Amino acid sequence: MALHNKKEKNFSEWYTELVSEAGAHLADIRYGIQGAVVETPWAVKIIRAFEEMIEKEVEADGHEPMLLPTIVPEAYIKKEKEHVSGFAPELYWVTEGGGKKLEEKFYLRPTGESQIFPMYSLWIRSWKDLPFKRYQSRITVFRFETTTRPFLRGREFNFFETHNVFANHEDAFEQIKHDMAYCENVIHKKLGMPFIFVRRPQWDKFAGAVDTYGAETIVDGKVNTVASTHDFGQKFARAYEIMYMDKNEKKQLGWQTTLGPGLIRIMAGLIGIHGDDYGLVLPFDIAPLQIVIIPILFEKKTADVEKKCRQLEKTLKAKCFRVKYDGSENSAGWKFNEWEMKGVPIRIEVGPKEVKEKKLTLVRRDTKRKEVISEKDLDKKICEYADELLKNIKQKAETELKNSIHDAKTFAELAKTIETKRGMVRVPWCSIGLDGQKCAEKLQEETSTKVRGVLFGKNEKAKGKCIMCGKPAKHIVYVAKSY
Amino acid sequence: MALHNKKEKNFSEWYTELVSEAGAHLADIRYGIQGAVVETPWAVKIIRAFEEMIEKEVEADGHEPMLLPTIVPEAYIKKEKEHVSGFAPELYWVTEGGGKKLEEKFYLRPTGESQIFPMYSLWIRSWKDLPFKRYQSRITVFRFETTTRPFLRGREFNFFETHNVFANHEDAFEQIKHDMAYCENVIHKKLGMPFIFVRRPQWDKFAGAVDTYGAETIVDGKVNTVASTHDFGQKFARAYEIMYMDKNEKKQLGWQTTLGPGLIRIMAGLIGIHGDDYGLVLPFDIAPLQIVIIPILFEKKTADVEKKCRQLEKTLKAKCFRVKYDGSENSAGWKFNEWEMKGVPIRIEVGPKEVKEKKLTLVRRDTKRKEVISEKDLDKKICEYADELLKNIKQKAETELKNSIHDAKTFAELAKTIETKRGMVRVPWCSIGLDGQKCAEKLQEETSTKVRGVLFGKNEKAKGKCIMCGKPAKHIVYVAKSY
Repeated sequence: MALHNKKEKNFSEWYTELVSEAGAHLADIRYGIQGAVVETPWAVKIIRAFEEMIEKEVEADGHEPMLLPTIVPEAYIKKEKEHVSGFAPELYWVTEGGGKKLEEKFYLRPTGESQIFPMYSLWIRSWKDLPFKRYQSRITVFRFETTTRPFLRGREFNFFETHNVFANHEDAFEQIKHDMAYCENVIHKKLGMPFIFVRRPQWDKFAGAVDTYGAETIVDGKVNTVASTHDFGQKFARAYEIMYMDKNEKKQLGWQTTLGPGLIRIMAGLIGIHGDDYGLVLPFDIAPLQIVIIPILFEKKTADVEKKCRQLEKTLKAKCFRVKYDGSENSAGWKFNEWEMKGVPIRIEVGPKEVKEKKLTLVRRDTKRKEVISEKDLDKKICEYADELLKNIKQKAETELKNSIHDAKTFAELAKTIETKRGMVRVPWCSIGLDGQKCAEKLQEETSTKVRGVLFGKNEKAKGKCIMCGKPAKHIVYVAKSY
Repeated sequence: MALHNKKEKNFSEWYTELVSEAGAHLADIRYGIQGAVVETPWAVKIIRAFEEMIEKEVEADGHEPMLLPTIVPEAYIKKEKEHVSGFAPELYWVTEGGGKKLEEKFYLRPTGESQIFPMYSLWIRSWKDLPFKRYQSRITVFRFETTTRPFLRGREFNFFETHNVFANHEDAFEQIKHDMAYCENVIHKKLGMPFIFVRRPQWDKFAGAVDTYGAETIVDGKVNTVASTHDFGQKFARAYEIMYMDKNEKKQLGWQTTLGPGLIRIMAGLIGIHGDDYGLVLPFDIAPLQIVIIPILFEKKTADVEKKCRQLEKTLKAKCFRVKYDGSENSAGWKFNEWEMKGVPIRIEVGPKEVKEKKLTLVRRDTKRKEVISEKDLDKKICEYADELLKNIKQKAETELKNSIHDAKTFAELAKTIETKRGMVRVPWCSIGLDGQKCAEKLQEETSTKVRGVLFGKNEKAKGKCIMCGKPAKHIVYVAKSY
């Protein structure tokens, strides 16, 4: 049984079905608050797995974990003007506690800056404290969003953030490149999801940042940003008085950066990019179950098969694989569907024939191809399958991303491309400074697309004129619809 | 430099100093909300380490992780009468969002029951779904408390809870014994903190429970409850309609239990039970740093020493020890104090003599005893030290707990014992049913102690009369002051 909705035909319904109890049951939206979903065991395990990969990356590069409260005093948000104007409209306020009105109300953190930086102001004192690199993970944040969708936009959602302070802008900017490398290592290399990093236009930065860089994947023709890293310059440091004594005993403002891998967006990417009409397709390393063993039973001779299955499960468990023998009463066909839906990378089928011939039938989730192997080759095959599965879905995703990036020289071309091909369109643009904002607003009004930014790290040469105002183009910008 | 305050003389100030920036800097209370502390890297790493141990225990016994929102719709709390009357006074309410008053206000979860059980009502359908065992961890909960103290009582604090549904009370009660075994395995065996499990009197149960069992440790003469497990009977199942179809296709109410290891209370125990006048003392397995290498430098011949330190660090890292070479500019003495304060189990000192003779000086944190060993014995010694350290602090804590339990036959004896010896006092008691509540209230009024309950699993025979009302005693109860 494939999903009722087909990915190619009606992606949106396919996504909803796959996320729901009728599909892989990742999020339950029947909880009584819009945009606040319940994450099921399967989803929690997947998110934990890649969250831990990111934790390892940032820790290996000198970040230490910290944990701040969910609630923040009102006074904290007011310090950085741009930040407050960006986030205040989305805040939730706690106004009552212990049966009465609170003397000072507090808000639920929408992101960590305003709660973390007052502490940094206390903790950072000397040039010896720098670079100062911390992160908090396994937390949630809260934003009053009007439209919500599981793993794409929530009113409460999983969050991860690093917050760093450096002595100068060079070091800070170097960190931003490291941030991009963590994303490359985890999101691309381990999860098989390619992206491009763009530098956002000045009118679309994180509230309070000097520059924002976004990692853009394409899901069903629209941009799904899976991570952002921000250059804060000294703006927050000035507002929150994050200062250090330099070697000459002079007080200096710190230079700050922050990385926010979008945990739920990465999850949405895994679903939307790798999933197919039979359900999830998960890389071996993050699959909550990596191998499922299913008995193929005929007539009454089942004892040998069941024994073999149990023995296999035990052997593979001892080798630290996440493996399950599904000995339930359901039919083999039902089990195939169930574990395909959940995205288990490898299925081992064991029937009387396999037992007799000391063979096993293996099925890889992505290709659904069957192969009969000698039992003694199992370990080698598992490793091969794990590698090949990732390689295959990664290549497929890379090709898709490549095919989703188009070029247009005029507004008419852009409009047509967005209409027919979707994805991202590279167009000549007047400016990504604030003087280009009017063109962007007009573009958005007419096409519902946004200027995502310029490609990071490559100075893509602009030719011709801005597709909106006709002034000489300074940049090639990437334009797309987004989630 | 030892701590300014001494553990034996003024425990309370010692605890506060050790937790603060002046000590091991575990929690920062300078965050602008009373009872909402910032957990520093050192604290986060310790809590994570034992939280993962508990996760492993419950997962190995069939629990699956889930994650629910922090916010809960108002309607959810109202379903179970005793639960709402117990928790409603402590709730925090979110009443505003997106710049306006919310149509339905919601509360911050004080504990999971009221948010989880509406989902269980949807998820559990058949006897095949049972036993149904889930947990959520790495979350925080919120309670409006009047007095607060880091890791002892907070308005927002770390939380872990399992929630199980069974087909009958026998299975549910069996789970409670499993819960106690997880606590024994982690809190006692791995963290070295002994406790006794008591069955609470009926007037002091978790709000909505049929029975509550608490794991009591003693910290500075007062009870610090490090875990609770609750028998919910069918009370919540009835209120939240958690029902399953039995094998005869009849609808039945589930039987429920829940385990709540007190993460912050375990942390408080680690600080208060194992700590000494030089700072924290941490079991090897949960120490964020297990080994610190400190160079002892004389005159100018430092290159060999530094090289040896770096090489040692590399070798030990490769063996997966959490190790750090402290090559900072501070003096050796300063470093000794710093890492003793943080509770690093093993210090390796390397000086020119050690380099020359291929020896190392080892110092164990708990005993502070020095030993010069052959470099080739290092691995063996590390394992020995790790084991012996745990064994030593565990035995010490066991002796302390044993010495903290006293007997009294009369109210006068009890009052004197609490005054002079503190700890827990075993006394004859009329009843732990509701008819014993008046005696308990009078006891609390006169001595500030509470009846903690009767020892679980051993039917301790009562002789004589209730120390309060003089009626024939049915039980031996444990009486103590508590945090």
